[in-house]
Amino acid sequence: MSAFAKLAAAANRNRSLLCVGLDVDPRLAPPSLVGNDGWIERFLLGIVEATADLVCAYKPNLAFFEALGIEGYQGLRRTLEGLPKDVLSIADAKRGDIGNSAAAYARALFEVWGFDAVTVSPYLGFDTLEPFLESDDRGVFVLCKTSNPGSGDLQDLPTSWLGETLPLYEVVARRVAERNREGNLGLVVGATYPRQLARVRALAPSLPILVPGIGAQHGELEQSVVAGLDAAGGGVVANAARQVLYASSGLDWQATARATAVELRDRLEAARQEWTDAPDRAAAR
Amino acid sequence: MSAFAKLAAAANRNRSLLCVGLDVDPRLAPPSLVGNDGWIERFLLGIVEATADLVCAYKPNLAFFEALGIEGYQGLRRTLEGLPKDVLSIADAKRGDIGNSAAAYARALFEVWGFDAVTVSPYLGFDTLEPFLESDDRGVFVLCKTSNPGSGDLQDLPTSWLGETLPLYEVVARRVAERNREGNLGLVVGATYPRQLARVRALAPSLPILVPGIGAQHGELEQSVVAGLDAAGGGVVANAARQVLYASSGLDWQATARATAVELRDRLEAARQEWTDAPDRAAAR
Repeated sequence: MSAFAKLAAAANRNRSLLCVGLDVDPRLAPPSLVGNDGWIERFLLGIVEATADLVCAYKPNLAFFEALGIEGYQGLRRTLEGLPKDVLSIADAKRGDIGNSAAAYARALFEVWGFDAVTVSPYLGFDTLEPFLESDDRGVFVLCKTSNPGSGDLQDLPTSWLGETLPLYEVVARRVAERNREGNLGLVVGATYPRQLARVRALAPSLPILVPGIGAQHGELEQSVVAGLDAAGGGVVANAARQVLYASSGLDWQATARATAVELRDRLEAARQEWTDAPDRAAAR
Repeated sequence: MSAFAKLAAAANRNRSLLCVGLDVDPRLAPPSLVGNDGWIERFLLGIVEATADLVCAYKPNLAFFEALGIEGYQGLRRTLEGLPKDVLSIADAKRGDIGNSAAAYARALFEVWGFDAVTVSPYLGFDTLEPFLESDDRGVFVLCKTSNPGSGDLQDLPTSWLGETLPLYEVVARRVAERNREGNLGLVVGATYPRQLARVRALAPSLPILVPGIGAQHGELEQSVVAGLDAAGGGVVANAARQVLYASSGLDWQATARATAVELRDRLEAARQEWTDAPDRAAAR
């Protein structure tokens, strides 16, 4: 099954657009676990156990594992071994390199680690995405408009492209939608920019869009999901990380993470349902 | 000593602008080593032993280590432990992430691994560089104009910026030069684009420029180095990887790597000297 077919099946089965970001942080995780042998996978797989019927995807951000050195990589490996096989696994890696180096990153993420999907950066050019697209069963989310305050520094600059003037992130959206011959490309647009998300959805009607920042980054959850939905009322992967993972650091950490995930899943689903039922969907955006 | 002071001292001591890229590849390394216990560091530190008096920097590209899994990370750690302390170590990581994730990458590269300098991507905005700039003794090379054929897809697009129209990579060069308050920023410009390299040098007169692709990527070595030199006849870090590392896979691999590095170092130094001695340097570009 292709990565994006797996994503759609999980979203459908769990009635969920929610992705949980597995961003391990020893300063925030339950002190009863941190530092014990195997604590990384015990913590993250505990979160997975508490949420697996509530999500369409899990997204480990590699930065947090790399910051823990070799122990972090070992924890990542054991976490990946324990993930359910019927939910999408996304390496939030934001890699971007050229030629042989890009091919080495694709090997690392898809073959060595075994992720279903990755995030990549477009700055180096669209030839650098090709090594990631060779396995048409894996998914590739290209950074388009990110959720941080400075994302406009380059992404919003007015750019001349094929005789038009448009913000750089729209060039990215159009190039990626155009290249999507094998159906394995998606885009990343932060929840903090719902107007731009609606624009990207218009330019890339059928691509899955990974939407980080619905939780701790105070993105507008309902507004974002509605802005990002495709014609079938799907196609959004709404990521929350710390809000779920670190909902409690007490002994109730699993139950509290589950309660938070239920709330997020239900809010996402209600917004989706309301939009799907709206007589005039375009106006509802 | 700051990273860039170490770089200048090594360039001066070894009369060398040469950086050797430590891109480990089991398909190209000497078969007499590959697969044996500890082969990664035995190979790479063998290259270092053969070239340490000929270079100003070493640059491991993390992609190639990541493609080897946990064994790759262990090899990287032991390689870093064996690098000479008076030559710049550059993590060619091309990382780019936001907020806490960017901070985690900075911790991973500077504290966990202990690199002197890193390469980072600017697509996410200039706020995302800040976590890397907090240690003013470390160096940060920002991708500007890369050496691959598709680098122009975004980097060359005409962009409106402060009332002017200029290619996106020039916006990056100007923003980075402007931010360089602590003297710890540099830029990356591929050897395959000497005209753009000269333009970046004009916009960022005092920043070190990492110039990949002088070897296997068939960049024009002399033309590139001259295009990139600063007013003092320095400021270029000219990287060659496979051309040196894989000069021979026979038993003479160390001697052949050294001979190749000598030739590259001497060509770089001759070009530098000729330009420094030129009565009209601007015309000599």
